[in-house]
Parts: sequence; C-alpha cells; structure tokens
Amino acid sequence: MQLKNYLKIKSDQIELHLGKLVPEREVPQNLLFQAARYSLTSSGKRLRPILALATTEMLDGDTNIALAPACTLEMIHTYSMIHDDLPCMDDDDFRRGKPTLHKVYPEGHAVLAGDFLHTHAFQILANDPNLSSEQKVDLISILAKSSGGDGMIAGQVMDLEAENKEIDLEKLKWIHQHKTGALIQASIEFGAVLAQASPAHSKALQQFGENIGLAFQIVDDILDVTSSKEKHGKALSSDVSNSKATYVSLLGLENAEATASSLLQTSLDHLDSLPFNTTILSKIAEFIVHRCY
Amino acid sequence: MQLKNYLKIKSDQIELHLGKLVPEREVPQNLLFQAARYSLTSSGKRLRPILALATTEMLDGDTNIALAPACTLEMIHTYSMIHDDLPCMDDDDFRRGKPTLHKVYPEGHAVLAGDFLHTHAFQILANDPNLSSEQKVDLISILAKSSGGDGMIAGQVMDLEAENKEIDLEKLKWIHQHKTGALIQASIEFGAVLAQASPAHSKALQQFGENIGLAFQIVDDILDVTSSKEKHGKALSSDVSNSKATYVSLLGLENAEATASSLLQTSLDHLDSLPFNTTILSKIAEFIVHRCY
Repeated sequence: MQLKNYLKIKSDQIELHLGKLVPEREVPQNLLFQAARYSLTSSGKRLRPILALATTEMLDGDTNIALAPACTLEMIHTYSMIHDDLPCMDDDDFRRGKPTLHKVYPEGHAVLAGDFLHTHAFQILANDPNLSSEQKVDLISILAKSSGGDGMIAGQVMDLEAENKEIDLEKLKWIHQHKTGALIQASIEFGAVLAQASPAHSKALQQFGENIGLAFQIVDDILDVTSSKEKHGKALSSDVSNSKATYVSLLGLENAEATASSLLQTSLDHLDSLPFNTTILSKIAEFIVHRCY
Repeated sequence: MQLKNYLKIKSDQIELHLGKLVPEREVPQNLLFQAARYSLTSSGKRLRPILALATTEMLDGDTNIALAPACTLEMIHTYSMIHDDLPCMDDDDFRRGKPTLHKVYPEGHAVLAGDFLHTHAFQILANDPNLSSEQKVDLISILAKSSGGDGMIAGQVMDLEAENKEIDLEKLKWIHQHKTGALIQASIEFGAVLAQASPAHSKALQQFGENIGLAFQIVDDILDVTSSKEKHGKALSSDVSNSKATYVSLLGLENAEATASSLLQTSLDHLDSLPFNTTILSKIAEFIVHRCY
C-alpha cells in the first residue's frame, strides 16, 4: 500500500474515534465539549496516534484495541497546542489552517478546554475496557512522563525562557527532545506496551522513537523558514518573529537538513534490528523527515 | 486529640511530602519546579489530602502508604487554582495570602506550572511503589473523573458562563457540585480505595463526600461576604466584583447557612452508618461547615 493511502486510512479512523471519545454533549457540558472538539477534530496529521497504531501493527498487536489509547496521545498533543497558542505563550492566531481556539472562544474557555483534554486522556486510559490494569498503568506512566516535568512541559518552559536569548545547540537539542521528541517517542512506546513487546524490542523501539522525535522537530524548524502559510497551516516563520533559536538559525539550512537525515538513518538502524516487517514504520520515519522538502 | 492539633500534624506531614514530590531541581528544570513549588507549598488548609488520610485511618488503612496519593489531590487542586486565578479567568491577584503565581512569574510560566502539577499527579499515582495496579487505576480513574469534563472543569466552564448572568439555584448547585464538590468527594473515595473498603462502605463514604463537598462550597460563598481579606487570604468578595451568583445572593445569608447545616447533618448520617470510629471525620465535616462563622 502507498504510504499516502495508509496515512489517510489511519487518520480517518483516528478522526472518527476522537469524535466518539469527545462527543457532542447536551447542556450544561455542551460548550466545553464543543470547544475541545473544535481543536481536537481539526484536520491534523495525527502523527502520534498513527505511530502508535503502526507500531502495534508491526508487532502483531490488535489495532482495534490500540485505537483509543492511541487517541489519548492526540489529546495531550492538542491540549499542549491550545495552551501553547495562548497570548501569554506563543500568541498564535492560526493553527492547522484555522483560527486558534482562543480566537473563537473566550480565552478562559480555551485554557479549560485544554485542561479538559489533558485530564480526559488519563481518564480514557484508566477506564479502557480492553486493557489489563498493568497495561493501563504502563501507558499512563509513559504518557505522564513524556508530557510532564521531565518531558513536554519542561521543554515548553525552556522554550519560553530561550526567547530573545542566545542559546547553544546543546540547549536547543534539549528543548526539542523534551518539547516535541518525548511525546513522539511515547507514541512508539505505546505500541510496544499495547502489543506486549519484549524488553529488548521495546528498547530498540524506544531508540527509534527518540531519534525520529528529535528529527521531527528539526524538520519543523526547517519548514518554519521554507514553507508557506498555505502549506504549513500557520503564520510563516513564527519562530523568527518570536526570536527563537532554531536548528536553522544555529546551523544553517544545509546542516540542519543533514542533521535530520543523520537522525533518520540512526532511527532506521534501530528499527532494522527488529525481526518484524518494518516497512510501514520506516516509510513513516522517512515521511517525517522528508515531509515538505 | 483536639481537631486543631490533628489538622496541624496532618497538614505538616502533607506539606513536607509535597515538597519531596515536587523537589527543588537543577537547571534546566529549576524554573518550572520553583514556580510549581511557589503555589504548591503555600500554606493551605490541605483539606483534600487530610480527608483522604482521615478516611484511610478510619478504615484502618496505612496512612504512610496513603500520603503520596493524598498529595496528588492537592496537586490537582493547586493546578486548578493557578489556572482559575489567571487574568482570562477570575483574574485574582492574591491567593492564600500572597500574590498569585502569574503575578510573580510570567503568565506563560503560570499556565505551564499548572499543567505540570496536573500531569505530575497522574505520574505519581502511576509510579507509586506501594500500590497494586488495580488501586492505581482506581485512584487515577477517580481523580480524572472528579477533575475533568464530568467534574471540576465542567463546573469551571459553567462558572465562567454564569458570570453577569442570572442563574437559578439548580444551576448554581450543579456548578458547586462539579467545580468544588467533586474533588472533595474524590478525596473521601481515595481513602476508601487506599484502605480497600467494601462496596457498601465505599458507597456510604461517597454520599458523605458528596454532601460535605457541596456544603464546603456553600460555606465558601458565605465566607466570601462575611470574612475579611486577612482571615480568608484573598480579596474580599471576589464573587461580588465578578458578578457571580452565590448561595448567599440567591437565598440570603440565613438560608445559605441553613442549607450548609442541613447538608452537614445528611453527611454525618451517612458517616454514622459505618461500623468505624467516625469521630475525626465527623469533626472535620463540622469544621468544614463552621470554619469561620
């Protein structure tokens, strides 16, 4: 199957299931759920749940069972974008080609809709009828670690701190690994837990995820200067207007691309060490790095 | 033991443990953890964790094991206050007698410190070495349900929506039950899970928690008009300045007090149905309702 078709089928499945996990509700919860759905069901790449599903599939796990847990990764990603877009953070007016949540709803509702999706992810995992208690705990632990004070949030705080400052490549790498890389790595780890992979296989997948997670954010830096608003769905080069260091500003475009390619190769090496059909995951990794240039 | 001493001993234990669960950290996480500690280790009543510990104790559970899970209730409560105090929400400058987090740190840091405490609560529960997987899942489920789209956040959204509007008592009760009552009820339920209470005992405790949770918020309405800034630690009558309906504005002071007293009696009836020494929990319930008038 063409990767494009695979991604379309999976993202349609995810889109549909997200709508079921955060359904339209009656009064008095109608407003909260509507606001959450506005951001959650915007057409996104759904990269994180797709990675979880593709990993589950590769390991011969049950993708029907993996679908709801995979969707919780998208909820965490979406809540983080809602908060990241707020005026007191990145102050972005557009996201995924449409106005950001706080431009359409009162700002307080946007904060709370983010909080809701944040909690909802854990609620869904804890109440999933298809998982063992041990799997639930493992998934919750992975999700919390990757998105909390040793993961995404830590990266976001450093990212805010780094605005209008000169930072070195080591610090920028740390920010990228935490702000973005950690949740992408977690998506791969989700697949390993859902398909009950061996510790050795889980370890290789973790390393695959770590490398491709960092590559993803470096490519984001690259796209921030090379892509247009139409293609990328948000204002051109918001990093430049926010005076943020990027791999491109520190290394130049060519070296940033070379770094992403090198991380891709390392990630593929880890993947190829596994005794499974790695075709789809390899293609997704290549897509991550070559997605727009 | 005098209730005052009991509360002091427990809140000191909780204070100490909160500091261990969110410790001072080195660069680069120092700022995030400092901001979270600023709000988390402010002297508060610690009512929610105390309720969890007192319930555990009454049921002959191990309060040493209950301490960390009890602290996660305070983390969720604190994150919700940090976000609730933001300019786009209640816009409060003082909390627990000192400036709110966004007055001391940049507003973006305050949003993220709230997000961090939110995630951290689930991370601590998922990684607690003293709990079975089933207990972890039960606690996470209770915490998520009580603080999410069918609990606290739902109440907060409705609370924002109700500003400058006339609402009836039924709607106000719904807001109070969700915004505040749910997490207090969850605190009691935590004790039941931690001490592995029977379903019948858990049910009675849940009803105790539901009644005392609503009473707590009604008393908050009463204190909002009767208490001074010094006593209560925040600006006098913020509800009046935000034009929010309260039990006092809808029923008058006397009827609001009578409603709180009636809820206290109902809660004590449920508690007294249990074959345990309910003295401490009863005293705490009375303290909740008579705490300042």
